[in-house]
Formats: sequence, structure tokens, C-alpha cells
Amino acid sequence: MNLYGYFRSSASFRVRVALNLKGLPYDSTAVHLRKDGGQQHAPAFRALNPAALVPVLDDDGHVMTQSLAIIEYLEETHPQPPLLPQDAVQRAYVRSVALAIACDIHPLNNLRVLRYLVKTLGVSEEQKNAWYRHWVEQGLAALEARIVADNRAGQYALADSVTLADVMIVPQIFNAQRMDCSLESVPTLMRIFEHCMRLPAFIDAHPSKQPDAD
Amino acid sequence: MNLYGYFRSSASFRVRVALNLKGLPYDSTAVHLRKDGGQQHAPAFRALNPAALVPVLDDDGHVMTQSLAIIEYLEETHPQPPLLPQDAVQRAYVRSVALAIACDIHPLNNLRVLRYLVKTLGVSEEQKNAWYRHWVEQGLAALEARIVADNRAGQYALADSVTLADVMIVPQIFNAQRMDCSLESVPTLMRIFEHCMRLPAFIDAHPSKQPDAD
Repeated sequence: MNLYGYFRSSASFRVRVALNLKGLPYDSTAVHLRKDGGQQHAPAFRALNPAALVPVLDDDGHVMTQSLAIIEYLEETHPQPPLLPQDAVQRAYVRSVALAIACDIHPLNNLRVLRYLVKTLGVSEEQKNAWYRHWVEQGLAALEARIVADNRAGQYALADSVTLADVMIVPQIFNAQRMDCSLESVPTLMRIFEHCMRLPAFIDAHPSKQPDAD
Repeated sequence: MNLYGYFRSSASFRVRVALNLKGLPYDSTAVHLRKDGGQQHAPAFRALNPAALVPVLDDDGHVMTQSLAIIEYLEETHPQPPLLPQDAVQRAYVRSVALAIACDIHPLNNLRVLRYLVKTLGVSEEQKNAWYRHWVEQGLAALEARIVADNRAGQYALADSVTLADVMIVPQIFNAQRMDCSLESVPTLMRIFEHCMRLPAFIDAHPSKQPDAD
């Protein structure tokens, strides 16, 4: 398997964690989102993914996009250890946590969105950073409230086993820390983050550990 | 089952289509996103979903959020007719189309995001509409390119059977039409949309057919 990604992309980070948790070895191809005008726009990469977004997974010639679709694929083709529980209601809970991050928080703070705010709408650096923090803080607070209300969390988002929910939480918290977001109001998410960051699968997937980190 | 939704919410529209395709009867509770300062912010609704977002599905006391998590739950608990193919690579393709809409297009044009642009960043009505069209047109063009390159589409996104991909495409095209986005460059998506809109499951789920439509 070959993973096309970028060290700091949180969607790439998610897939690295999932591959590590499954114990699957993989090759990496770095796609630098800020060099050469954005290597994701190069014709060779666009031939793989016309959306010009990372990550892309090539599994023996099968080219896949979208981090959550890739992780569900890994779960189906390499079921052990599972990243989703057996029970359908619990699976819906885990996926809803994952999607709250993938749909309600992360898309608003993508590089291309921040660039549009600055270049097309002419917002200031300060306004751009306030936008970033607003969506992260509001989104994480809503997620914390949901997880507390659901009362399923233990060391991890679902009791004491790592699931897809944790795979999604950790890169989002990493981003939040990097952008100096306030995390005081999300103690449950921070507890989950800290438990995860003791595990080699998460440690080894960290952006700072990637060969393309700069 | 009881679906809390809003007639014009495309995430609610998705779940209505999935319930109809599965032939599952359901009760509806309207949550008007524009009345009473937004009924999604009312304490009773926030107790169901602290994120104050629709849709929410209550299945016999099991409360679920996030349209894609709800649809995966319906797929697992009511497998017939299937909304995902059997083959893992094809499932990844279908989910990647779904997620391209759920993550790369739809979140940028949510009501709360458009409100932030106007109220906090002070952008003009014209700039707001240009933002909306930019992300829809760019996102749909990327999706069209991906679907054409993958060469799996027939009447629908995956050959001639309706899948989760189609369930996601239709509400997004509906939104695009409502906001006068250009759809000339996405003939494959439009062909899929038109085939879907001949089916009762899609027709009956249309926003204009909902009891709360105004």
C-alpha cells in the first residue's frame, strides 16, 4: 500500500493512525501542500485525485480517496483489531463522533478555505485566526457535550477500546493546539487525546515524526 | 422511528431518501431552523443533540446524529435493498463520493457558516452568494472529474443501482439549483440526478413535499 499524504494534513494523520493500529506496513509519498504552488495541483497527482486533496491510498492499484472511506475500507479488508464495535447503535455513535469532526469542524479550516478568506474576501490575519478558533472551539464543545451526554466514554471515546472516533479526535486536537485554541472546556476530549498519545500507533503517526516534516 | 429534521436541510433530505429506499415508515418532527431564533437551539432539542444540528433519528429510544452515521446504521439494521455494494473497493468508491459531498462541499454552505460570513466578517450579500457558488461549483466539478475518471457510473453513480452516493448527490444538486449555481460542467452528476428524481423514494423526500415546507 502507498499513502499519498502531507505530514501536517489531519486527514492524512487519521489514515496513518488507522494503518498503524491495523499493523499494516505502507509506503509513503509526500505531497507538499505549500511547496511548488501546492504539489496537490500537479498533473500527476490530479490524475490520482482530481479533487487535489490528500490523502490518497493506492492498494495494489486500487486508488481511494477521502480519509473516512479509506479507513472503512481498511476496517473491511483487515478487520483485526476492529476500529468499529459490533453493535449497530454503538457503531452509529462512533461514526457520529468521527463525522462531527470530519463534517462540522475540519472542513471549515482547510488551507483552501483559509486562503479564500484572505485572498478573495480580504479578511485580516486576526479575523482568519478568529474564524479558525471559532469553528474548532464551538465544534469541540458540541462534541464534548454529546460524548458526556451519551456516557459511553472511558479511556477512549467508546469505553476502553480504541475506535475510529479516537482516530479522528487526535488529529483535530493536534490542530487545535497548534492554532492556540482554548481546550479548557473539553476535558473529556483531552483525556481521550492523552490516553491515545501513549500508544505507538498514534505516536508514530504524529506529523512531527513524518519524513516530510519541515 | 422518528426523524427530527427540516424540510430544506440537505442532511435531512439524505436521511428521508434512505428511509424511503429501505421502505421504512417513520414519524417526523419538524425543527425549523429559521423560526423562533432557530428551533434547533431550544433546550428540548439540544438535549437530543447538543450540536444543535439536524437530522436526529430516534429509533426506539436510540438517539443518533450525523446523516451519514444514521444511513450506515439503517444499512446495517435493514440491509435490503442495499445502499452499499458488496465489494470493498466499490464500497470505498461509493463512500468517497458521499464524503466528497458531506465533507468538501456541504459544510461550507451551512446556514451557520453563511451567518458568520455576514454577521461577524461583514461580507456583502453578493460576496456571500459568490462564496456559496464557489465551493459548490468547485466541489461538484472535482466530483464529476473523479466519477468520470473512475468510470463506474451508469444511470447512477455506481452502474445502474441506487447507492449511498446517489442519496448524497441529489440533495446537493437540489441546493445548487436553488442557489443558481452553474451546473453545465457536471453532465454526469446531472444525469444521475435526473435518473434519481424519477424514483418515488427521491420524489417523496423532496423538500417541497414535506409537511413543514413553507
